[in-house]
Amino acid sequence: YPLRAMEPETTEYTRQPCVVVRLRPKIANEAVLWLVKRIQDNKVDNGCQLDVDVTELNGAKVLYISASKYRLLHGAEAIGLKKEYKDGTLREFCFTDRANFKHQKDDDFLSESEQHQIVKVELDGLRAIDEKHIPSYENIKLYPGKSIFRRMVSNHLVTDNFPLHDRPTLHKLRWLWYKTLDLNLQQPLDHVRSYFGDSISIYFAFLNFYTLALVPLVVLGLLHWGLGLRSDIGGRVDDNWVLSVIHVLWAAAFLEMWKRKSTEYSYKWGTLVFIRKVWEEPRTGYRGPLGLNEVTQRQEPTYPSWKRNIRVYLITCPVVLLCVALAVCLMFYYFSWEIYLTSMYRHEPGIISSLIKNAPSIVYSILVLMGNSLYRKLAEFLTDQENHRLESTYQNHLITKILVFDFSNNFLALFYIAFIYDDMPMLRQTLRNLFLVHMIVSQAIESLLPYWQFKYRSSVYRSTLNRGNTGPTTHDQTCLELQRDTYEGTFDDYLELWLQFGYVVLFSCVYPPAAIFALINNIIEMKSDAFKICNVYRRPFVYQTTGIGTWKVAFQALSYLAVVSNLALVFHTPRFIEWIYKIFPDATTLSIFTAFVVLEHLLLGIRWLISYTVPAMPLWVKIETRKMQHYSLQALKRQRSRMLLPAQIVQKNLEVLAAISKPSTIKEEHELLVTD
Amino acid sequence: YPLRAMEPETTEYTRQPCVVVRLRPKIANEAVLWLVKRIQDNKVDNGCQLDVDVTELNGAKVLYISASKYRLLHGAEAIGLKKEYKDGTLREFCFTDRANFKHQKDDDFLSESEQHQIVKVELDGLRAIDEKHIPSYENIKLYPGKSIFRRMVSNHLVTDNFPLHDRPTLHKLRWLWYKTLDLNLQQPLDHVRSYFGDSISIYFAFLNFYTLALVPLVVLGLLHWGLGLRSDIGGRVDDNWVLSVIHVLWAAAFLEMWKRKSTEYSYKWGTLVFIRKVWEEPRTGYRGPLGLNEVTQRQEPTYPSWKRNIRVYLITCPVVLLCVALAVCLMFYYFSWEIYLTSMYRHEPGIISSLIKNAPSIVYSILVLMGNSLYRKLAEFLTDQENHRLESTYQNHLITKILVFDFSNNFLALFYIAFIYDDMPMLRQTLRNLFLVHMIVSQAIESLLPYWQFKYRSSVYRSTLNRGNTGPTTHDQTCLELQRDTYEGTFDDYLELWLQFGYVVLFSCVYPPAAIFALINNIIEMKSDAFKICNVYRRPFVYQTTGIGTWKVAFQALSYLAVVSNLALVFHTPRFIEWIYKIFPDATTLSIFTAFVVLEHLLLGIRWLISYTVPAMPLWVKIETRKMQHYSLQALKRQRSRMLLPAQIVQKNLEVLAAISKPSTIKEEHELLVTD
Repeated sequence: YPLRAMEPETTEYTRQPCVVVRLRPKIANEAVLWLVKRIQDNKVDNGCQLDVDVTELNGAKVLYISASKYRLLHGAEAIGLKKEYKDGTLREFCFTDRANFKHQKDDDFLSESEQHQIVKVELDGLRAIDEKHIPSYENIKLYPGKSIFRRMVSNHLVTDNFPLHDRPTLHKLRWLWYKTLDLNLQQPLDHVRSYFGDSISIYFAFLNFYTLALVPLVVLGLLHWGLGLRSDIGGRVDDNWVLSVIHVLWAAAFLEMWKRKSTEYSYKWGTLVFIRKVWEEPRTGYRGPLGLNEVTQRQEPTYPSWKRNIRVYLITCPVVLLCVALAVCLMFYYFSWEIYLTSMYRHEPGIISSLIKNAPSIVYSILVLMGNSLYRKLAEFLTDQENHRLESTYQNHLITKILVFDFSNNFLALFYIAFIYDDMPMLRQTLRNLFLVHMIVSQAIESLLPYWQFKYRSSVYRSTLNRGNTGPTTHDQTCLELQRDTYEGTFDDYLELWLQFGYVVLFSCVYPPAAIFALINNIIEMKSDAFKICNVYRRPFVYQTTGIGTWKVAFQALSYLAVVSNLALVFHTPRFIEWIYKIFPDATTLSIFTAFVVLEHLLLGIRWLISYTVPAMPLWVKIETRKMQHYSLQALKRQRSRMLLPAQIVQKNLEVLAAISKPSTIKEEHELLVTD
Repeated sequence: YPLRAMEPETTEYTRQPCVVVRLRPKIANEAVLWLVKRIQDNKVDNGCQLDVDVTELNGAKVLYISASKYRLLHGAEAIGLKKEYKDGTLREFCFTDRANFKHQKDDDFLSESEQHQIVKVELDGLRAIDEKHIPSYENIKLYPGKSIFRRMVSNHLVTDNFPLHDRPTLHKLRWLWYKTLDLNLQQPLDHVRSYFGDSISIYFAFLNFYTLALVPLVVLGLLHWGLGLRSDIGGRVDDNWVLSVIHVLWAAAFLEMWKRKSTEYSYKWGTLVFIRKVWEEPRTGYRGPLGLNEVTQRQEPTYPSWKRNIRVYLITCPVVLLCVALAVCLMFYYFSWEIYLTSMYRHEPGIISSLIKNAPSIVYSILVLMGNSLYRKLAEFLTDQENHRLESTYQNHLITKILVFDFSNNFLALFYIAFIYDDMPMLRQTLRNLFLVHMIVSQAIESLLPYWQFKYRSSVYRSTLNRGNTGPTTHDQTCLELQRDTYEGTFDDYLELWLQFGYVVLFSCVYPPAAIFALINNIIEMKSDAFKICNVYRRPFVYQTTGIGTWKVAFQALSYLAVVSNLALVFHTPRFIEWIYKIFPDATTLSIFTAFVVLEHLLLGIRWLISYTVPAMPLWVKIETRKMQHYSLQALKRQRSRMLLPAQIVQKNLEVLAAISKPSTIKEEHELLVTD
């Protein structure tokens, strides 16, 4: 399979980056030849126009896919990458206008992750023309417009597909990221983004921001404790209404500031105005009889939405509610046990008795964790059965299912103890145990387990990798990375932060040290997540995203709930009620309750007003985007005023203009009207 | 002032449409000449390239501004009008591609209102180049980039500016709109839109939709009454919880359905994806020392936002709160009077006693109405003092002020009577009086007053208008229309509907006939509003809008509040409480209250969930927009695949492509690549 020397610039560019495609062992040679030809074919012949190198590795064929710089620049335009223009603004890259983009001659004009993204989009966009099936595999059907690569993945003809790590860059990144102890807790986000792409770097940006935001909260908590306003840090709830106020305000401020910070990142990374340039394909698992897609007018599997709705409302909803009910039953069972043991050992001091007293909540915490992971599999199964057409809809339905269950599983017990069972010491104990067990177990599952795996696996291959000065061959590297797991995305990491945020803000006055533990945990988390993604998983493909998406809504929901729960806790404390009766001697329970309700609605309204009035865009971003907009409008106007010339020139211009399509990005004037 | 014969098509197009600009009497001739020259100048010379006819009318110079079809088509592209493409989709009009738009050869390809809009945008966009002041007026300063026309308006050199009515079309529209009695209550929206533009037709669309939506509500109400579930229509609250449920569900359903309907209109009228093609100018009243605009890099008045914030928070907020407080004081004063009179005449039946008993609430209603209109002037003054840069920000601040006050002025008394004073008969009486007085007085102010004005004024000019068969001359028509008032926009009409909606849904179970009266009122309103805009006011300029904007939020806020107030009313009825005690014998007041709060949060949550899950886009609109999107992407891809040709062709193509800027709307392939 020789490489074609196609474009003049090809020689400038070595065949890095490599995207690895491993095929099923013993795949028919005919199918391989066909696939390679289709990938190498010119775009006009409906190919990908990419370069392919075929080799064999442990009995399976492996394709190394690469591209010239020339090809990649065209691809960058196709997926709508934004790059720095000569005037310092970010613009969508345009091949014909490439001379005006900064650094475009440099080898790292396109970061490696961007190059991988371009190759991946091209591969997924490779479509069947008139092939009825994959050669030699008559049962693997194709139809015009079907993505060949996705079909091969879903039929396991393609078993693995990932970009190779760039060992020197990764080595540098490791030192920048987690191998040194950085006291100001800053992550090297630009490096992370250029290596791992937007979705991962925005997660680390959020983790970093959240961790830094915890610092003032911890300082305020310690100050409040240090000033003698409270006698013991784990103690009574009564005096802690100040802490409640601090936590609620903090949660609001944190989320509002993140909203603005996130816009800044989106602007800097060119995803602020992000227009999907690629038609969203049906997801790999989507199935159904072939039918006509009303939008594309092409054949694809169809599945009527009424069937999906029946599944969602008649199967999914009852099952999810049943799971929640089971979780609640478990909770009540735990309560009765807890109450029984507490009454048994109430008057026996000592370590053993305290251990026994804590046993139910520790066991419950572990059961909650196990229930979570079991339910996770169920949720995936249910969502898969719903047969959503798009990956994004699938993800939304999955996230909703998991959040509903995880919320009830983690927090319902706490609400019950606080407001129905009305036992503050028990609330504190349960909260502490749930929180700490959750933190310790998830750190263990997340970091230690993968680390041991990594140690074990790498010891086997270490010898082959470090021989000589030239570093490992691509072959060796591929062998090593095939041993690794595929990175599953940032879902679990966000979920963990979300639950932690809930533990910190929902019942803040009951267990103030939560913020301190969260801070410590997150400092470790930053390092361990960085370690994990560098060493344990295969390099992921990159997707462009704007902000943290659905998670923003989920965090905000908790911050609204925190207003309610904290206010309710304050109105629950005996001292507060005493104080009210002192000021309003003729207050009744009902009028206090009414005051609570009115105050709650007022606070929720203010909370909403804050998030409504604080603009998501910092002023400088606003001015920059307005500048771009204005620049476009001005150029458009200049062009149009030239089109309105006196009659004799108009006709001449019109002939030229007929060939020129309407520009969306604006060029210099001389480009717009050639004969001016 | 002769017309220039500039373009070949000029002769095809008579000088309709006429936009009238009346100048100050005795304005310096030099200034007039200069203005006319600037308006007539070619676009390349920074003029408007419009045709001007100058005449004199009652001692004041009047300019009639018109344009050729050729000129207007260019203008249509400049403001981004959407028109039907040959494939049936709506696309932004593009002059060079005009042959592919349907009906583009017809004279009514651009509706009259669109033509006026184009002329208006061009006039407002006429900018000073190096003029330091308006000729002969050294104190009326100009600076490079300042809108000449806006400066002349703000200095009263231009006293009037409006498009002339098109008498035959208006005559036809009158018959279609309000002169015939249409039993299915449909408005001729497409005709209204083509004559009066988007913002007015969307108001009538909303009024129409709302009125139709009231019909099932009235039917359900009558059914509930007819089925004997209730004994008298104005009677006790106790049994009316069914009505409460009906009203709350209706409010939610109505707003969700309007959300979808509104999207349909936006799609049909081409404003769904509406990109502002014209840089938003500072509003006419904006003032401050000259400074550099960071975005445009041009000189314009500047006003630091900290000064504005000080005004908003230290002057406006206290004044608004003071006004609200005054309104509340008035309310309490009315209460004491009401209670006094009720206790005086409690046992005296008869018409006079009942009149006296109703007197306070009628007087109060009238005072509320007067207070509203006084406060209105204050709000305008305050918002003007805040010196907002943009018209849109100004409008938002004004609307917020007025809604806050009108809400407290109209509804606070009702909440007080219902939940603090706890007197249901009084609530019903106040609600009825407030509602009916509000309806009758506003109909009188809105319809009868302008009608008499119209009768009086038109009688003077009627004789001149109807002479001969040729109809009135432009001169006569201008004279007549100068007598009319300028149309102030749809704000008051929306506000009236908003208050009415509040009266209908907030306390629905107390005064069920409200819906019936609202229905009758709105049927009259449809006709009288139509009459008003056709006969009483000057023809307004047209602005493109998407949906009803801020009003959607205002209506939705009321529908959320309705959930709370209706639930609270139900929990207030003695029978309901009795019923609860029957089922849960050991329920305490506190536990019932807790149940209320939990239920309220649950219902609000469900209400939010409904509006979150009901998609704003009906399926067919979604498919249509997706089709467009897909078509663009496909064409883009085809174009790009052609750019990736084998090496020998690439170089040749690149030379051609260098002159072609990146297209946003997609042309046929042969236009994209000339040498293919």
